[in-house]
Amino acid sequence: MTRVHVWGASGYAAAEVVRLLRDHPHVELGMLESRSHAGEYLGDHFPQLRALDLQFDVPGSVLRAVRRDDLVVTAGNHGEAIDIIPLLLKAGARVIDLSADYRFDDSAVYGLSEWRRDAIAGAPLVANPGCYPTAAALALLPLRAIGDVTAVVIDAKSGISGAGRNPSVGALFAEVAGDIRAYGLGGHRHQPEIERNLHAHGIDAPLVFTPHVVPLARGMLVNAYAFFAGDVDPAATMLAYSRVYRDEPFVRLLTGDRTPSVRAVNGTNDAEIRIDVTGKTVRIICAIDNLGKGAAGQAIQNLNIMLGLPEESGLHARAIVA
Amino acid sequence: MTRVHVWGASGYAAAEVVRLLRDHPHVELGMLESRSHAGEYLGDHFPQLRALDLQFDVPGSVLRAVRRDDLVVTAGNHGEAIDIIPLLLKAGARVIDLSADYRFDDSAVYGLSEWRRDAIAGAPLVANPGCYPTAAALALLPLRAIGDVTAVVIDAKSGISGAGRNPSVGALFAEVAGDIRAYGLGGHRHQPEIERNLHAHGIDAPLVFTPHVVPLARGMLVNAYAFFAGDVDPAATMLAYSRVYRDEPFVRLLTGDRTPSVRAVNGTNDAEIRIDVTGKTVRIICAIDNLGKGAAGQAIQNLNIMLGLPEESGLHARAIVA
Amino acid sequence: MTRVHVWGASGYAAAEVVRLLRDHPHVELGMLESRSHAGEYLGDHFPQLRALDLQFDVPGSVLRAVRRDDLVVTAGNHGEAIDIIPLLLKAGARVIDLSADYRFDDSAVYGLSEWRRDAIAGAPLVANPGCYPTAAALALLPLRAIGDVTAVVIDAKSGISGAGRNPSVGALFAEVAGDIRAYGLGGHRHQPEIERNLHAHGIDAPLVFTPHVVPLARGMLVNAYAFFAGDVDPAATMLAYSRVYRDEPFVRLLTGDRTPSVRAVNGTNDAEIRIDVTGKTVRIICAIDNLGKGAAGQAIQNLNIMLGLPEESGLHARAIVA
Amino acid sequence: MTRVHVWGASGYAAAEVVRLLRDHPHVELGMLESRSHAGEYLGDHFPQLRALDLQFDVPGSVLRAVRRDDLVVTAGNHGEAIDIIPLLLKAGARVIDLSADYRFDDSAVYGLSEWRRDAIAGAPLVANPGCYPTAAALALLPLRAIGDVTAVVIDAKSGISGAGRNPSVGALFAEVAGDIRAYGLGGHRHQPEIERNLHAHGIDAPLVFTPHVVPLARGMLVNAYAFFAGDVDPAATMLAYSRVYRDEPFVRLLTGDRTPSVRAVNGTNDAEIRIDVTGKTVRIICAIDNLGKGAAGQAIQNLNIMLGLPEESGLHARAIVA
Repeated sequence: MTRVHVWGASGYAAAEVVRLLRDHPHVELGMLESRSHAGEYLGDHFPQLRALDLQFDVPGSVLRAVRRDDLVVTAGNHGEAIDIIPLLLKAGARVIDLSADYRFDDSAVYGLSEWRRDAIAGAPLVANPGCYPTAAALALLPLRAIGDVTAVVIDAKSGISGAGRNPSVGALFAEVAGDIRAYGLGGHRHQPEIERNLHAHGIDAPLVFTPHVVPLARGMLVNAYAFFAGDVDPAATMLAYSRVYRDEPFVRLLTGDRTPSVRAVNGTNDAEIRIDVTGKTVRIICAIDNLGKGAAGQAIQNLNIMLGLPEESGLHARAIVA
Repeated sequence: MTRVHVWGASGYAAAEVVRLLRDHPHVELGMLESRSHAGEYLGDHFPQLRALDLQFDVPGSVLRAVRRDDLVVTAGNHGEAIDIIPLLLKAGARVIDLSADYRFDDSAVYGLSEWRRDAIAGAPLVANPGCYPTAAALALLPLRAIGDVTAVVIDAKSGISGAGRNPSVGALFAEVAGDIRAYGLGGHRHQPEIERNLHAHGIDAPLVFTPHVVPLARGMLVNAYAFFAGDVDPAATMLAYSRVYRDEPFVRLLTGDRTPSVRAVNGTNDAEIRIDVTGKTVRIICAIDNLGKGAAGQAIQNLNIMLGLPEESGLHARAIVA
Repeated sequence: MTRVHVWGASGYAAAEVVRLLRDHPHVELGMLESRSHAGEYLGDHFPQLRALDLQFDVPGSVLRAVRRDDLVVTAGNHGEAIDIIPLLLKAGARVIDLSADYRFDDSAVYGLSEWRRDAIAGAPLVANPGCYPTAAALALLPLRAIGDVTAVVIDAKSGISGAGRNPSVGALFAEVAGDIRAYGLGGHRHQPEIERNLHAHGIDAPLVFTPHVVPLARGMLVNAYAFFAGDVDPAATMLAYSRVYRDEPFVRLLTGDRTPSVRAVNGTNDAEIRIDVTGKTVRIICAIDNLGKGAAGQAIQNLNIMLGLPEESGLHARAIVA
Repeated sequence: MTRVHVWGASGYAAAEVVRLLRDHPHVELGMLESRSHAGEYLGDHFPQLRALDLQFDVPGSVLRAVRRDDLVVTAGNHGEAIDIIPLLLKAGARVIDLSADYRFDDSAVYGLSEWRRDAIAGAPLVANPGCYPTAAALALLPLRAIGDVTAVVIDAKSGISGAGRNPSVGALFAEVAGDIRAYGLGGHRHQPEIERNLHAHGIDAPLVFTPHVVPLARGMLVNAYAFFAGDVDPAATMLAYSRVYRDEPFVRLLTGDRTPSVRAVNGTNDAEIRIDVTGKTVRIICAIDNLGKGAAGQAIQNLNIMLGLPEESGLHARAIVA
């Protein structure tokens, strides 16, 4: 059993990683290091984890405990893990970093599981993708097989847990409930990550990206509208998506009356995708859990790939009904 | 004082009309006819109206009571008011119809207040616009001054009160809470109304329309993306919108860090609009209250126009804080 | 592997039973009979179950398929399963009924798992308790060891899924969101069930019961206030609860700053309980998931007891974080 | 027209005061002083107030501007206004303080409008009551006419805006949504205020107080259970409440199937009250808007009393429908 440590364990995504690791049949939970909460119970910060009876370990715990072939999930704020990751790698551990720090760095493999499986398998360091970029990439990358995209609009709606657990006025219940509003219009930090993914797969069209906060704790719906120079063939488009995703355990293509739903994917590592073609336009709607496939779920999927485990290990849970 | 009757008074929009009429300084509340709730108290169906101590009148009440120069707001389900409206007009009353029945009918004036003020002023019958079409038109119509639009995407998010007060599984709290999902993808009944408005103002581009349900009781955010053949001039675009709306009491153009917010307009007749230009694309974000500017509020605005009253009469209330 | 059928499979609790059975390591899913949805996919009614790719079976399926030693969970509306249950028992199957039909019937064992374990183990027919009665019993029954209770107040708050999936105006999102209100004040059908449980354990004090709907899809918090003739000893009270629950895998006693939380138990079979003593009064706060410990979870717990399986089988999942 | 200044204008309650003052027909808005937001637009912090086009004034503004017969609403954090209030009084202004600072101070009149009308009318300084204490007092004070109360339980549920606008983890949307939990069990600061009110009106029974956070931005439901030594006469109880409240414009006694509802009072200064008698117990359910009757609304009501204005001035608005 591989031992897995979590460094910077006090945010929502890290807590989800802990929850998933705890039920994972093939790995063993190691240190849970937190600078801010050292010595405290996870359940006192996340009542959902009260039954696990786990405590945060003190700063330095992971580095002291880490051994060759351990795996470490680093999950602090952006920039915080930059110092420790090289030390972990040097100690012979492999690392999955949830922050944005290594997503543009060639020393890491970008961990978009369905599209980078082989590279992830052998990587010492995996940069886990952002939530919007994950959904956007799953939605748009198959289009490269259809023709030249001339313009892309992404209109995305996210639950507020994406803003993290640091208190801010804009994330208060009394501000988020009853509202929906766009944000980050001057340039969201995920836009370059989305564009990089598109360019890497031959889609170089200009992108307009509009993220929104909606009154959800978790889950996101990302709508992508791709424009082509001429009319698009619906059957060929559907076939292109089907070829890419039909054997993927975590991606569900929906047709007919079925539309992607946040409630259908929350608490899971699933993505739901639906494609509609109208003239020169392809609309792709993609639902993921921002803390699942958009963070902790994909981290566990990458862990499974890195360790040569069945890719669904520890990721079987279904969304609760209602 | 003009007497105003409400026919078909049992839905959310009609109840809002009653609430607004009750505080309107220049009109008098007449009959409140409801087939399904006749004799019952409004407050037993809408606890928000308990303080008003009003009862629903029996079927036939409006037709019996109506006099020349009365005004009637008809608000039943679509198709229900078709029989009575000609009789009301014949009796010399003027009518504002909240249903979709007359929105494509030349015998009625389409009541998009800011764009049809003169026609509304003299109309015997005003077809009050739908909620999505109101927001879409406010967002897109000024673009005719900029150049030829080649494509339009509308990505819209609405509170569930837009689905009405008839119980359905899809509108249950346990289905709407925690979810966001697109619907009506096979053809929403508002799409032709939106297209008709665009065509009437010289915008003939193909439209992709994606409505969503979000976990809000009321309020909607409508994002329109308009594409042009060449690069768009941001200053000219801003100027075009400013020219159209700068003197409008209910339309607020936002710039800088300010983005339209449902909480800023809920309970009011306001619309908030923000424009961003990127290359060949103009993004317009518009927030309205689907039961305010998208239904009851605009009905009162039209009533004020029809009766020659100050247009803001009875529409001064601001959204509650938090 | 015991085969488990679900009869009347179209409500929230039944769908949760299906979700839990699907992941249960020691049982096999049999028929999923539904009159109203026969032939349709579960995932088309519960998008959370889309990944399971299951269809509702036609009326009569369970009775045709049932064999000796199968287990059947009956979950139709109250009154609906009365005809089929005797036939299932006659066929040699064992039955867990989620409705209220057999809760007052001596031919069934009342399935309050922690308090009726032995009787449940050998029962052919188990009447699964209601959600409020489960929480109230867990909260109050240990008090019999403390002394004579002179009065009981239960102030309970429930998510709206407890009202079922049949559409009604009162359960619409636009009615439940933003509100909290008491209901059933003229006599909630759970009150006699609560009183019966109390009397059966020697608590005969008069009960005032106030159930509320709060803006939650699922989960409930039940506060019980018990009054005694004299001052109550806090340590003895805590000890009484500890004796009863310390080895229970699904009951968590909280102390200090920790208070029961719906988010801590949603999606699980857990109950969180906290006791505070002030003079002659004991306040017990109990949180359960109305669809978990209050319905489907307790049904699976009872199934495990009936089949001699480890009681936590299939019930290990933790609540999702955020 | 009396000029009204707001000192410490950056919280939810103060913003509601500003909203109400702006529409008040008989007063004039003066300075809006805020240390933290000086020079900024109110609408940039409260988008609901964008249409008002108001800016926060700099520290010192109120003291410089205040004149004899002005009225000042002080609304900073608890403790902040203690220094300025004596200076304002010395300048001849009258003061309504929203904080808890003067609620136990004999130099101020406790501003429970319905019960202290005469004292308020002539008071230079009014201590506006807390939200829980207001609801609890309205619910319980009429009981003194019924007999000796032997015990009181108050089980109260509040929207999160009561926690203010200072960011904290516990008030984040991702923490409040989907949960309901008791808090402050070790001693809520409102408990002594409630007890003081009860004692002042002859109710000296021990009190158990359980406040909860529910997923609401605003509004609260306060259930009080009062126990008597013998059986209570329902008719006499109803009569006692009716005598006290029948002529009160802001208090609504509900009977029959009607139960107090947060949605019925949000955005208003109303209180809804329902009484049920069972044996020796009286249950009183009271709904108020914590920012309305529980803060800003009652402040305006007190202002009207102090200025000799009709008590409903500026307080006519009804809750929005849905």
